[in-house]
Amino acid sequence: MRRIYLDHIAATPLHPEALAAMLPFLKERFGNPQSLHGEGQSVLEAVEEARGQVARLIGATAAEIIFTSSGSESNNLAVKGLALAGRAKGTHLVLSAIEHLSVLNAAKSLEKFGFRSTLVPVDGAGTVRPESVERALTKDTVLVSVMLANSEVGTIEPVAEIAKLCRAKSVLVHTDAVAAAGSLPLDVQALGVDALSLAGDQFYGPKGGAALFIKKGTRLLPQIDGGIQESGRRGGTENVAAIVGLGKAAEIALARRAERAAKAAELRDRLIDGLSRKIGHVLLTGPRAGRLPHQASFCIQFVEGEAMLLSLDMKGIAVSSGSACSSKALKASHVLLALGLDHATAQGSVVFSLLEDTTAEDIDDVIESFPPIIERLRKMSPLYTAYLKENPQ
Amino acid sequence: MRRIYLDHIAATPLHPEALAAMLPFLKERFGNPQSLHGEGQSVLEAVEEARGQVARLIGATAAEIIFTSSGSESNNLAVKGLALAGRAKGTHLVLSAIEHLSVLNAAKSLEKFGFRSTLVPVDGAGTVRPESVERALTKDTVLVSVMLANSEVGTIEPVAEIAKLCRAKSVLVHTDAVAAAGSLPLDVQALGVDALSLAGDQFYGPKGGAALFIKKGTRLLPQIDGGIQESGRRGGTENVAAIVGLGKAAEIALARRAERAAKAAELRDRLIDGLSRKIGHVLLTGPRAGRLPHQASFCIQFVEGEAMLLSLDMKGIAVSSGSACSSKALKASHVLLALGLDHATAQGSVVFSLLEDTTAEDIDDVIESFPPIIERLRKMSPLYTAYLKENPQ
Repeated sequence: MRRIYLDHIAATPLHPEALAAMLPFLKERFGNPQSLHGEGQSVLEAVEEARGQVARLIGATAAEIIFTSSGSESNNLAVKGLALAGRAKGTHLVLSAIEHLSVLNAAKSLEKFGFRSTLVPVDGAGTVRPESVERALTKDTVLVSVMLANSEVGTIEPVAEIAKLCRAKSVLVHTDAVAAAGSLPLDVQALGVDALSLAGDQFYGPKGGAALFIKKGTRLLPQIDGGIQESGRRGGTENVAAIVGLGKAAEIALARRAERAAKAAELRDRLIDGLSRKIGHVLLTGPRAGRLPHQASFCIQFVEGEAMLLSLDMKGIAVSSGSACSSKALKASHVLLALGLDHATAQGSVVFSLLEDTTAEDIDDVIESFPPIIERLRKMSPLYTAYLKENPQ
Repeated sequence: MRRIYLDHIAATPLHPEALAAMLPFLKERFGNPQSLHGEGQSVLEAVEEARGQVARLIGATAAEIIFTSSGSESNNLAVKGLALAGRAKGTHLVLSAIEHLSVLNAAKSLEKFGFRSTLVPVDGAGTVRPESVERALTKDTVLVSVMLANSEVGTIEPVAEIAKLCRAKSVLVHTDAVAAAGSLPLDVQALGVDALSLAGDQFYGPKGGAALFIKKGTRLLPQIDGGIQESGRRGGTENVAAIVGLGKAAEIALARRAERAAKAAELRDRLIDGLSRKIGHVLLTGPRAGRLPHQASFCIQFVEGEAMLLSLDMKGIAVSSGSACSSKALKASHVLLALGLDHATAQGSVVFSLLEDTTAEDIDDVIESFPPIIERLRKMSPLYTAYLKENPQ
């Protein structure tokens, strides 16, 4: 059976050119980049080349890039590393309510060390209002963390505006750009942020290859203590192959993201229009305009996300019902609740995220296959039966 | 020019079977193991299979294995995660003075949170005496961390004895088994430890694939907060390919480590004997017997480690002058100083570590090539000139 994979936000395939770049480092170029001999030094060059490639993707300098093992590690390093380094200044954090779990839980774990956090609410479309962030700032605030885009609802946040008002009050700003990196232009200068998280598996790079931008001169407390790697800011032998693959994927993303985004946005709109036309009681989550080009998310009333997902899977269509980091937790998503949706509606979440090679035919197949699935699931739903009784058609 | 790579402790090559096992996960099997659809679930199975393979290498159960990105991350997670989870009980740690930087610096960073550490000295051969550990324990001690073997001087530590006396006082024991995993048998039951760190790149697995054993029922505070991965103990999308490669390398290590160790020990002794015979003013660091089978380390008086290393590199021989995590820091190794060596002697450190495919011919080449290098370097050494003046031959 033909498979249609529409779960970019869980993982993208590795770009063949990125894999090709990685292979020598999984074979003959196995040296440790910290070794002084030839086997080490030639590998170090490759690591530093990748650092430049990642830096160019976001308008940073190579020295501002720290390699990590995942977007979650980057987020932890940013939140904990910046907060703990700034503890003398204050112990208050400001986060949006729809941050990734790795940001929210990192802030939560800082409570053990005397920090407290304010969660800034979002509007019904998932947008963080800059004035809400401003109101949350206190003279004790050391860090604001607002994501560049939310993978679950597709909302793009006004990070540049938020950063500007934080800068005016000398408060550091981190942005989790993991979901955005695949299709949005990223420029740390234009954004005005002090830290930015990236993960390769959101733009056709390898799992295990991720990065954190830390603006030059910004103090950061390492979270993996160890040796001299990453200028002492992150210990552990470098995952050379993943770093090289991340670099190559960054280079490709820089060259192709505009084209990727334009193509994806067209198909995304085709999907949104098609499903909205063919399914009743369906709610597009996140904004209609100004959302991630490759993402379309819905809450389908009277059905459960997991049942939809498994039914679609049986039809050869792979999608998600939210973040892969919490998908099995079976709780309603904190993101959807923050948008003001009730628990029952939030349970009906389904997220389509498009790859570079997704075709109009794929989208049309989904528009064809999905409505009968919903119809069947709703027939089994006591909630839907009750609804029909109260609202005879 | 033929290259002779004798720097196992910096990195081993990736075993071709481990690479073969990884490749599908760098190509078509790119799913996220937390995804509920087919692309995710088939990948999850592979991750869990690897967990079993790693568990079998050390006599643990699969549920006791947490995948991490490096030995340093495993060490950080063990030291910080166990200490912080046990903070209600006490805030004192006991470490050997020759632990890896990732253990020592993790303990140091805990000082910010009210912890203090006692460093237990070692004898001249680098051995931690169990009675020294016992003396260092206080009623406030929550964790003891003593490595299973030291990569710089080859010493194998009496961890089982240390763990036994700690268990009698209900103190948790972590052992850094990163350097040992390639060639020593590992059995967490026999060792009696509560936590054990491993890294794939020390036994022909991939960089980026590492693990921490945490004994069932032991409380651990996550260090990368995030989602539901690794049963909530380590957030971040799993580096599937690295995990699969680690699993395969563990399987191979379990089958071959006895044979690997026996062969390596023979060549190691050939190297020790040959160099001791041909070079004057040379000191074997670590014990003669009871050392890592694949490691031979020396301090060569009146020469600098870095000069030796670069000269050997030019002759096609890759070795190290200590841990790759600190090799460029150009300070005398804390390990050698802890053995009682003076700074000048410690500067002359050179560490040979043998691979599975190292041959007697390789060793004989080193025994042939190394003495003239030392002779040349000593001719340029003012220290050696002064020594000769005082001790005419």
